[in-house]
Amino acid sequence: MNELQARTRGSVHIIGAGLLGASIGLGLREHGIDVTLEDLSPTTVALAADYGAGRVRAAGDPSPALVIVATPPDVTADVVERALLSYPEAVVTDVASVKLAPFLELTRRGVDLTNYVGSHPMAGRERGGAIMARADLFVGRPWVVCRDRETPAEALALVEAVALDLGAVLLEMTPDEHDRSVGLVSHLPQVVSSLLAARLLPAPEQAIGLAGAGLRDTTRIASSDPELWVQILGANREPVVEMLDALAADIAAFTDALRDPAQPGAKRRIADLLAAGNSGVSRIPGKHGSSERFAVITVIVDDRPGQIARLLTELGELGINMEDLRLEHSPGAQIGFAEIAVLPEVAERAVADLTERGWRTL
Amino acid sequence: MNELQARTRGSVHIIGAGLLGASIGLGLREHGIDVTLEDLSPTTVALAADYGAGRVRAAGDPSPALVIVATPPDVTADVVERALLSYPEAVVTDVASVKLAPFLELTRRGVDLTNYVGSHPMAGRERGGAIMARADLFVGRPWVVCRDRETPAEALALVEAVALDLGAVLLEMTPDEHDRSVGLVSHLPQVVSSLLAARLLPAPEQAIGLAGAGLRDTTRIASSDPELWVQILGANREPVVEMLDALAADIAAFTDALRDPAQPGAKRRIADLLAAGNSGVSRIPGKHGSSERFAVITVIVDDRPGQIARLLTELGELGINMEDLRLEHSPGAQIGFAEIAVLPEVAERAVADLTERGWRTL
Repeated sequence: MNELQARTRGSVHIIGAGLLGASIGLGLREHGIDVTLEDLSPTTVALAADYGAGRVRAAGDPSPALVIVATPPDVTADVVERALLSYPEAVVTDVASVKLAPFLELTRRGVDLTNYVGSHPMAGRERGGAIMARADLFVGRPWVVCRDRETPAEALALVEAVALDLGAVLLEMTPDEHDRSVGLVSHLPQVVSSLLAARLLPAPEQAIGLAGAGLRDTTRIASSDPELWVQILGANREPVVEMLDALAADIAAFTDALRDPAQPGAKRRIADLLAAGNSGVSRIPGKHGSSERFAVITVIVDDRPGQIARLLTELGELGINMEDLRLEHSPGAQIGFAEIAVLPEVAERAVADLTERGWRTL
Repeated sequence: MNELQARTRGSVHIIGAGLLGASIGLGLREHGIDVTLEDLSPTTVALAADYGAGRVRAAGDPSPALVIVATPPDVTADVVERALLSYPEAVVTDVASVKLAPFLELTRRGVDLTNYVGSHPMAGRERGGAIMARADLFVGRPWVVCRDRETPAEALALVEAVALDLGAVLLEMTPDEHDRSVGLVSHLPQVVSSLLAARLLPAPEQAIGLAGAGLRDTTRIASSDPELWVQILGANREPVVEMLDALAADIAAFTDALRDPAQPGAKRRIADLLAAGNSGVSRIPGKHGSSERFAVITVIVDDRPGQIARLLTELGELGINMEDLRLEHSPGAQIGFAEIAVLPEVAERAVADLTERGWRTL
């Protein structure tokens, strides 16, 4: 018996058999846990069971040590409350992408939250549903676990064990900290990207034809599912509204300075806001956008199979570790550009070595 | 003698020896053109000449058939006017990233613009200067050429021949069409990305730690040079202000609907704006963001040299043509994710084949 089997007494119940619920089920079954499933939709739960995410819960099944609520965010509080009542011995967690609203709603209803630990695995896919589920959906992704002062250590440890055993990177936050954080790094960019992309709708075709990597990057997430985002944003209204107001004030200040360049200090205000953007983006960890940490080499590649593989094989032969890679393809051209991020100290040698091997770099 | 040598009578003069001027010089010299250079800074022009972009123009040099003005946008009109007066037999073009403001300023001054053809090669690098110049900077990039009714066909043909011989993709627009187009696809996203990134400045470290690909994409161009952008935006004030006002109105409508969900139709208005973003982003040509055209397969890769090359080599062996590739690295994890875009019809087979070879896909 492994540690997770011991902690869960071998049994976990999952309510909501969509992408997240079914993925957790698949992952837990790989760890030898008996997973039972339930969903409002008999079709969904049968599909998830067929898929190997667990078995449909039946009367007489033993009481689970852990219940995981993986329903859409707008019903999370209802389902958590019901789970706490139905399984009074179990720890109940949820995976909703907002954490304060369900917590406050449960508190308002006077629900005893001793056995509740809110959590948020920051994983997803463009399409949902059990059919898209993967046991390794959470591998390497942040998984936020929310505690309050009353949360018993063993309840917290149980949820954290699940997150870690599914391969996630664990982070502890309060519900408020979580919601403000995802509001800033996920919800605000989503709204901004969507509204920027919406401005492309009335544009003439020839304008769109000049689009480059900058526009593509800033609007990529604008292709997200509107229905899901109506729910997420609605459940994290307060921080998102506050951040949108702050952004709107910055846009107004910027636009006013641009509109009337004769105002004293107008250019300076524009420059200061752009410079603040420089500083803001430099705070983001990870590979993209970290222009201070990496040097980018752009290599011209023919647009045919095997070219990128050959380039990367040669980089490996040259002992150059690539930190990031992006491809860009130009309209009307038979070539593409591979943008390779490397540590600044190897950039010069990398360009020289690649050039010697016949690659064209920009 | 090649066609470009014939059209230019073998001689082109470039005013402004920074990144663009020096890159054009390098490219033209590869076509056997005698390039003369001039710059306000003796150091800059000497550096560009040493770099191979041309030779410093001297008294007694033959009159050029083409003068290319590659100065910063705020002095473009002045330099073009002077060039038209100094070289009355030559066609004069410029490479400024705004086209209407210099055109209007020259018209206002009563300058005869018969020999002037405005143009804009949409190429650049994060860092400027002759030292960053490349003969192939323009390969595969859009190069907009602006004509008006008075532009003689042979003047237009000369500038277009240069653009084509440097490998660019040619587009014809009026100055107004150009400025509105780049305002939308380049200037507006720049301001939005910068102001979004500026909102990260006051955020606590733990919030930034949850940043994912969405935030990194939307803020990547926020690391651009503020000084250059103050000039560009200042010279394209009117369309950018108009678009910022329209965006601000959308943000206000969105925020109001989110702030007060009890209003009739509030959720619908939020959903409609998000859906407009879906439609807007689907108009962008090219690889990123074109989720309707391609299926994305996410492959888990170890974060060590050679893994990506091996993956791409195997994709090549499997006969799978990759349309796009992006790497994402998770904080705290020893693995990364390679997101591979393929044609939808090969996605299923690609996943099956990769899985059979031991790759883990999400």
